Amino acid sequence: MPQNKQIHLDNRPVGEATASNFKLVVSETPQLKEGEVLVRHHFLSLDPYMRGRMNDAKSYAQPQALGQTMGGGTVGEVVASKNAKFAVGDKVVGMGGWQQYSVVDAAQPGALRKVDTAHIPLSAYLGAVGMPGVTAWYGLVKIIEPKAGQTMVVSAATGAVGSAFAALSKARGCRTVGIAGGPDKCRYAVDELGFDACIDYKLHMDAPSLSRALKEACPKGIDGYFENVGGMVLDAVLTRMNAFGRIAVCGMIAGYDGAPLPLSYPALILVNRLKVQGFIVSEHMEVWPEALKELGTLVATGKLKARESIADGLEAAPEAFLGLLKGRNFGKQLVRLHD
Amino acid sequence: MPQNKQIHLDNRPVGEATASNFKLVVSETPQLKEGEVLVRHHFLSLDPYMRGRMNDAKSYAQPQALGQTMGGGTVGEVVASKNAKFAVGDKVVGMGGWQQYSVVDAAQPGALRKVDTAHIPLSAYLGAVGMPGVTAWYGLVKIIEPKAGQTMVVSAATGAVGSAFAALSKARGCRTVGIAGGPDKCRYAVDELGFDACIDYKLHMDAPSLSRALKEACPKGIDGYFENVGGMVLDAVLTRMNAFGRIAVCGMIAGYDGAPLPLSYPALILVNRLKVQGFIVSEHMEVWPEALKELGTLVATGKLKARESIADGLEAAPEAFLGLLKGRNFGKQLVRLHD
Repeated sequence: MPQNKQIHLDNRPVGEATASNFKLVVSETPQLKEGEVLVRHHFLSLDPYMRGRMNDAKSYAQPQALGQTMGGGTVGEVVASKNAKFAVGDKVVGMGGWQQYSVVDAAQPGALRKVDTAHIPLSAYLGAVGMPGVTAWYGLVKIIEPKAGQTMVVSAATGAVGSAFAALSKARGCRTVGIAGGPDKCRYAVDELGFDACIDYKLHMDAPSLSRALKEACPKGIDGYFENVGGMVLDAVLTRMNAFGRIAVCGMIAGYDGAPLPLSYPALILVNRLKVQGFIVSEHMEVWPEALKELGTLVATGKLKARESIADGLEAAPEAFLGLLKGRNFGKQLVRLHD
Repeated sequence: MPQNKQIHLDNRPVGEATASNFKLVVSETPQLKEGEVLVRHHFLSLDPYMRGRMNDAKSYAQPQALGQTMGGGTVGEVVASKNAKFAVGDKVVGMGGWQQYSVVDAAQPGALRKVDTAHIPLSAYLGAVGMPGVTAWYGLVKIIEPKAGQTMVVSAATGAVGSAFAALSKARGCRTVGIAGGPDKCRYAVDELGFDACIDYKLHMDAPSLSRALKEACPKGIDGYFENVGGMVLDAVLTRMNAFGRIAVCGMIAGYDGAPLPLSYPALILVNRLKVQGFIVSEHMEVWPEALKELGTLVATGKLKARESIADGLEAAPEAFLGLLKGRNFGKQLVRLHD
């Protein structure tokens, strides 16, 4: 069995997460038991939710255990199998974690899923045709419930969720406006992802300034907002929401370091009769087949061209992850573990 | 035709509302035209939403016009009629405003509604069997969607909305906890209104302290919250919400004077996958018949004993209203205009 590099959570962040919270460990891969499969990981997905799990705090997910391999989504290839349903060479998606190989009890429902790479690249199963894509789908379709002609806004617009959101929103006939950091991302959002407009939040020092930019980009106001960041951006968007607007709260990355992140004008929820709803896509597995079908078609037909930011080698994962938390990635953040 | 005392909005509040914002005016009652009805008001309803209308700000309701009679719900008796559907002596509920008499074009749908006073006192149509009651009903039934055994919390618990909320929530088999100001109100909430517990927010200087009291009163956490006040109370409740909790936002009285009223931990909406939804009952007229039927039965059978705070005479209305905004009322705040 091959040697396996892993990254463990060594200690919990105090405030901002740092590279010293992680530790590289080399271990032997255990022998397979009956029903198990050995997966060689091609890509590891880095996602903002992982920051929340690094804290030892009440949250929707169990905290990441100390001294254990960091959890995370992976795609790869079966290299050994003691399970009749998986053959060597099968391409699979699972939760292999921050390591080069994983041994998976493939009998557990949902633990490992075979995927087709004829029309969809393997890495897309960690992005547009994976958890981030379904996240965008659930927030848009099930919480925001868009109508053609309405205006939809998403923050972190060029990320994996934002990219999918744009394609799904445009497919429903909505004006679709992104919020992203920097001119390159904003240009990319409009030129490649199909956004009607994209606002560079870094040009705005406060919520009133961002609110004015939103007014220009959303002349009919905002009917649906998909929240990935929180803080000033949410404050600004709230001032432009139309009556009966819907806000799907998927992330508040601005608050993950534990700094207080108040909402300045909650009374707008009442004034505009808004619905603000938090959700976690893994609690809605029933929608995955429908969502993945639409997302797969969008990718296969070139309507969803999701960009990837790929770090090379497991050792690069901590820095890539810390960069993601600061918005330094451009598109879906992946780590290449094996070719 | 009788002389008619009215209270006009003379000027808009700067910060806190004061008695000098209002002006008493005496006018002649105009002659009735075809289709009109003259109503002699017995009671005027005072409600927190009126404070919002005094501002010249974007809100769900049009601002109250300056130099015009303050709007408001009234119950009274028809004393002259040029409309075949209304006879002298009929008891009616309408939006007569802060005045002793109103001339109503009774042909307009919903302008005037005849009510039965055999089993339900006339004043109850401004409270438990009126707009406040339906407000409680809509928030509980349509937004919170309670299940038997869950825990429901309401702020301003002894007010008209809170009283109705308690009866409706108990009828659905929920543990029902109130938040009110002062020991008298809290005792009344438990002894007379059927609350399982009531917390005196005046005993708590900050949200963490109130949160601890909520933990004790709601050992299984909070599944549904009906928000009337905002501010510290909302901050504290948010820390005790269970996963998938629902918050119906009906009022944020603490912010009506224009002071900023931030929400300290909006990330809890995500962490606990909450739904937070604002609403205005007048936009949901379709539920009124069903709601009024249940509320009328609760009052007629003595299961909803709503207390009233009655100020005497139109001249007392401004002070009673300002007291309401400070929580000085105890139960539904009314003004008696005529016996």
